[in-house]
Amino acid sequence: MQRPINVGVVGCGYWGPNLIRNLRSLPDCRVATICDVSNERLSHLTRLYPEVAAVTDFAQIARDQDIDAVAIATPVHTHFELAKQALQMGKHVIVEKPMAASAAQCRELIRIASQRRLTLMVGHTFIYSATVRAIKDIVKSGELGEIFYIGSQRLNLGLIQKDINVVWDLAPHDISIILYLLSQDPVAVNCQGKAHIRAGIEDVTNLSLDFGNGAIALVQSSWLDPNKIRRMTIVGSKRMIVYDDNEPLEKIKIYDKRVEAPPHYDTYAEFHYSYHYGDMRAPYVKQVEPLKVQCDHFLDCIRSGTVPETGGMEGLRVVEILEAASRSLQAGGGRVELDEFSTERAKLSALA
Amino acid sequence: MQRPINVGVVGCGYWGPNLIRNLRSLPDCRVATICDVSNERLSHLTRLYPEVAAVTDFAQIARDQDIDAVAIATPVHTHFELAKQALQMGKHVIVEKPMAASAAQCRELIRIASQRRLTLMVGHTFIYSATVRAIKDIVKSGELGEIFYIGSQRLNLGLIQKDINVVWDLAPHDISIILYLLSQDPVAVNCQGKAHIRAGIEDVTNLSLDFGNGAIALVQSSWLDPNKIRRMTIVGSKRMIVYDDNEPLEKIKIYDKRVEAPPHYDTYAEFHYSYHYGDMRAPYVKQVEPLKVQCDHFLDCIRSGTVPETGGMEGLRVVEILEAASRSLQAGGGRVELDEFSTERAKLSALA
Amino acid sequence: MQRPINVGVVGCGYWGPNLIRNLRSLPDCRVATICDVSNERLSHLTRLYPEVAAVTDFAQIARDQDIDAVAIATPVHTHFELAKQALQMGKHVIVEKPMAASAAQCRELIRIASQRRLTLMVGHTFIYSATVRAIKDIVKSGELGEIFYIGSQRLNLGLIQKDINVVWDLAPHDISIILYLLSQDPVAVNCQGKAHIRAGIEDVTNLSLDFGNGAIALVQSSWLDPNKIRRMTIVGSKRMIVYDDNEPLEKIKIYDKRVEAPPHYDTYAEFHYSYHYGDMRAPYVKQVEPLKVQCDHFLDCIRSGTVPETGGMEGLRVVEILEAASRSLQAGGGRVELDEFSTERAKLSALA
Amino acid sequence: MQRPINVGVVGCGYWGPNLIRNLRSLPDCRVATICDVSNERLSHLTRLYPEVAAVTDFAQIARDQDIDAVAIATPVHTHFELAKQALQMGKHVIVEKPMAASAAQCRELIRIASQRRLTLMVGHTFIYSATVRAIKDIVKSGELGEIFYIGSQRLNLGLIQKDINVVWDLAPHDISIILYLLSQDPVAVNCQGKAHIRAGIEDVTNLSLDFGNGAIALVQSSWLDPNKIRRMTIVGSKRMIVYDDNEPLEKIKIYDKRVEAPPHYDTYAEFHYSYHYGDMRAPYVKQVEPLKVQCDHFLDCIRSGTVPETGGMEGLRVVEILEAASRSLQAGGGRVELDEFSTERAKLSALA
Repeated sequence: MQRPINVGVVGCGYWGPNLIRNLRSLPDCRVATICDVSNERLSHLTRLYPEVAAVTDFAQIARDQDIDAVAIATPVHTHFELAKQALQMGKHVIVEKPMAASAAQCRELIRIASQRRLTLMVGHTFIYSATVRAIKDIVKSGELGEIFYIGSQRLNLGLIQKDINVVWDLAPHDISIILYLLSQDPVAVNCQGKAHIRAGIEDVTNLSLDFGNGAIALVQSSWLDPNKIRRMTIVGSKRMIVYDDNEPLEKIKIYDKRVEAPPHYDTYAEFHYSYHYGDMRAPYVKQVEPLKVQCDHFLDCIRSGTVPETGGMEGLRVVEILEAASRSLQAGGGRVELDEFSTERAKLSALA
Repeated sequence: MQRPINVGVVGCGYWGPNLIRNLRSLPDCRVATICDVSNERLSHLTRLYPEVAAVTDFAQIARDQDIDAVAIATPVHTHFELAKQALQMGKHVIVEKPMAASAAQCRELIRIASQRRLTLMVGHTFIYSATVRAIKDIVKSGELGEIFYIGSQRLNLGLIQKDINVVWDLAPHDISIILYLLSQDPVAVNCQGKAHIRAGIEDVTNLSLDFGNGAIALVQSSWLDPNKIRRMTIVGSKRMIVYDDNEPLEKIKIYDKRVEAPPHYDTYAEFHYSYHYGDMRAPYVKQVEPLKVQCDHFLDCIRSGTVPETGGMEGLRVVEILEAASRSLQAGGGRVELDEFSTERAKLSALA
Repeated sequence: MQRPINVGVVGCGYWGPNLIRNLRSLPDCRVATICDVSNERLSHLTRLYPEVAAVTDFAQIARDQDIDAVAIATPVHTHFELAKQALQMGKHVIVEKPMAASAAQCRELIRIASQRRLTLMVGHTFIYSATVRAIKDIVKSGELGEIFYIGSQRLNLGLIQKDINVVWDLAPHDISIILYLLSQDPVAVNCQGKAHIRAGIEDVTNLSLDFGNGAIALVQSSWLDPNKIRRMTIVGSKRMIVYDDNEPLEKIKIYDKRVEAPPHYDTYAEFHYSYHYGDMRAPYVKQVEPLKVQCDHFLDCIRSGTVPETGGMEGLRVVEILEAASRSLQAGGGRVELDEFSTERAKLSALA
Repeated sequence: MQRPINVGVVGCGYWGPNLIRNLRSLPDCRVATICDVSNERLSHLTRLYPEVAAVTDFAQIARDQDIDAVAIATPVHTHFELAKQALQMGKHVIVEKPMAASAAQCRELIRIASQRRLTLMVGHTFIYSATVRAIKDIVKSGELGEIFYIGSQRLNLGLIQKDINVVWDLAPHDISIILYLLSQDPVAVNCQGKAHIRAGIEDVTNLSLDFGNGAIALVQSSWLDPNKIRRMTIVGSKRMIVYDDNEPLEKIKIYDKRVEAPPHYDTYAEFHYSYHYGDMRAPYVKQVEPLKVQCDHFLDCIRSGTVPETGGMEGLRVVEILEAASRSLQAGGGRVELDEFSTERAKLSALA
């Protein structure tokens, strides 16, 4: 492709400007038009980037034949309509996480993109972080042994959303990382939580993902914590990792620690666990802005027609879990099986 | 009372020696006899404290007329039988947490102690910690506003128990602190978890306590974490506390931070939350060994006949929650209401 | 002044681009021309800011009648010549720290600027940091009591300079902050250090500033430390502050701790110090980019003719201490009195 | 030796009880008598250890023929007289650090012990710490390359001494560790400091040790710091270590970081340093109480007649540096060469 890829960005609130800055910095990419309901946001951004056109009506982007691709960074409840319009007008789409407000919406977007052979990608940015990729490599290498348990905390004060609760807002990060690390889907989900600030919008939640015979993952999300915490612990049978995204340099710590049960024992006899305490190692990982890698990957997929690492199917998997979490929340935190979703997903995969 | 109180200590494994050391150091208290199934443990302790008698058969303590009180630091499944024997022989009892293996057992011990007017106390040591008491004072003062949420993590590598899972082993600390701070009982419990090292013994769990219209508490317990973590976050409508028991000095940090929703608003209109970021303060708290305060309180209660701060009823409340957690674990993590327990507890209170 | 102030920026290496970005963002200021010896650096910056002219010869800036002010961010040994030329051509000057390679050079620049009534400012950026200003307010309020001691560590791996040692490179920050906090000049200086990587260029140093009857300040500087450390401890007779610039939020911690000697005592008798341990408080300080405040202040001083907070005299004071430190280093770390400098400075002040 | 070694302990203040507890716990050792000027201290200790005799007059220990060895934990100005008496009465001696109030006193004690073939040991406890030994092994292995620099901070609030300043009180730990790690003596010393709380007793000091062509060590000591800091950084040409004794588990962190100058370059040409950033590793080190190891070593040396790892000569080396530091402090912090000391030491070694 000779001509630069022309991108329209819709949503210029918190995240949109980061997309604009990164897309603009990439060779062979041009941010042609930006769109927001707020004229104030638009004029702020056109002061910084005078070459970019600004519109308040998304239709102007959708029908602009010069625009090849659309990046969507608007509130979640608008994702489906905007992405659908863009795909129907033949544009490649990258949409912020979570992909849409329901699994059904995600499936429909996947179908349209598949029929029209367009790139559909979801902004699960952490999958493009050098740190998460380094952890994935360690997991894949078998160094950790069998993964027993992943615990994740994503806590801070605000920014409280008005249309979605804290699981839908924060947990997509944790869920996408956990699915990526385990290369496996959970079989069931539980979620408990409570709404304190705004009725009906949980601001503190506890999500657990059961991976069948394998691991369990526990994800805590909160908009009501005095400190910003982004910490994930990955416990394997041989080694354990703590991933603290707030650490400036040593984000990954690998602990050579484990508990071992004696291989064979008579239940009625005395036996002893052995505890192994070994070195800790923090591998050096060179940091690159993950959003830049993500934007670059989006352009690559458009050019080459390859499926993105965080394509529609990955976005769907995360939304399925969020939807199950909502059902569990409404049903007092009980277990919600995911088999119905996997049946639907199998049909979709067959189609693709 | 002129004569020193003579105490027998049963269980000389991990915790018993701490009880012996503290009881021995108190004026007007004498550790008369210690009991354990292991002769090795007994001889180790009599080398340190030659004046103490050592027996392997608890009956020798139970029938010793010179012994006024018994401290029980044995595995949980033995608590009920040992405490019952001691009470029936007219001895005051302090038993390690959790009080017994079921709420029914706790209720029976409470009944016996009540009939015989004996002191029955449970070793919820954290209630005697200067730090927890300082937090209680802050909560009571109203400085935090309404309590929204308490999150607690008690994680470490080992020591894996053989007769109880990690909720029964570690969460009694968190539960007793949470009940103490909130002066309120939860209405329902959820618990998810998984057993990795030993079949049927969960080593990682996620417990949530729903306090009705009020707070939610989330308690994570793990025997499989590379780091020892003892952290509790108490989020109020006005201020927030982080209590990190691993910090040598600044165990309590009070954050003048909060989120405020506008008092009245039209759901369809735009509105904004206000975020308040203020000072952090770490109050100086003079530390005393909590177990020493606990032992002293036990002796005081025996002498004065007053009800301990962590008496049978407090021990029962914790076991009720543990029992409900076990039911939830078996039922896929679903919600288990606690009303049946409160009915039973009301009858018991009427009796006392 | 109606017309925006036109600024030329010379030096587009590590720091220059930050000056350009901040100056450009200020209303009523225009970055007209940038200058560097490297065409590569210039073309990188003109890609980002197409409206800016780029030159490799400083004379083009110096003789450009439309340029009102010059910002100098070049290696230290060039500061004097560039600043002198700019001042002689009637331009206001802001020069990076340290102001020049010797106190004599600083004095000459002050004289020229004074004669021509031009603004001469030095980029001691930390004086414009909200954190340092908050500490200054605390010190001024008397809350700390008498200041006994300031200890400062500024350590990291690299960036090793080729024309100056680590005291000249890193310690200007600490020295400018210390002078600002104490509002006092030291009477003598000691400095020890060693050159490991490049002969004659000390990469690790220990600087001590004696403030006569008052405080002592100890400044450690290193290019050879595995961790980036920016920590200053300010010990007063009543309270103590730790200022850790690496902390994202709680940069200032005020400790209500002190040692008290008994007011009167007989030297031969027994006496006891009293140790006070009280609360710690981390005041909330809203952060603004200090360089932006600094650039804004430079423009204000130009417009209003007021003397900058970090004007030539402040720059000179820092260079005097650096020069004395160099002499001490060469003389085996012995004490170098600063009275000769203060005599010279008094003459200069008389002139101004 | 069949009979247990009988030890007398003199000084039952802060440190003495630790000696008593450890000596008592060792097989084949008996704490026969303890001595202090305070009857209160003595009665406190005999309550804990009823089998020990207590005296207020050291002569009773010195002339007790059943006592084989004396442990001295009294104020520094009394070390010489007590140790001398004990040695002259044929007793082995372990004396707390610093060994004595002057190098001359140390030399005399070494001479007496040598003539009478008695064990003379100094309580440089850190040399018996598993952590320091692990660092020594790393240094010896060459993993760090050439040692460039050791920086050490030993800071806290109090306990202010009345007879010695903070260098004499705290720096012996750092100095003994540095000498042990480098296996080398410094050629010169500088020391700056200030007395704030008590006239003439410096409470904050900055000590630098010049190791000739090799390393430089910078030791900061303070009784006036809000936090307890025990941190040592060891910078080598290949790797760097941070040793933080306050860390409960990861006391040693090894950084695979370094700066490299190009091997050959033309001074006038451009050249670039290369910065290597690699992994960090925290080796697991099993902790044992260092004082226990030290006491055990003292008994071993007595039994076998071998020279202690921290014998009189090691104690002397530390006191030489302290004496030089005092001279430097009095001479305005200037350089004090140590060659006079090494001449004296050579004579002494010849004698031994």
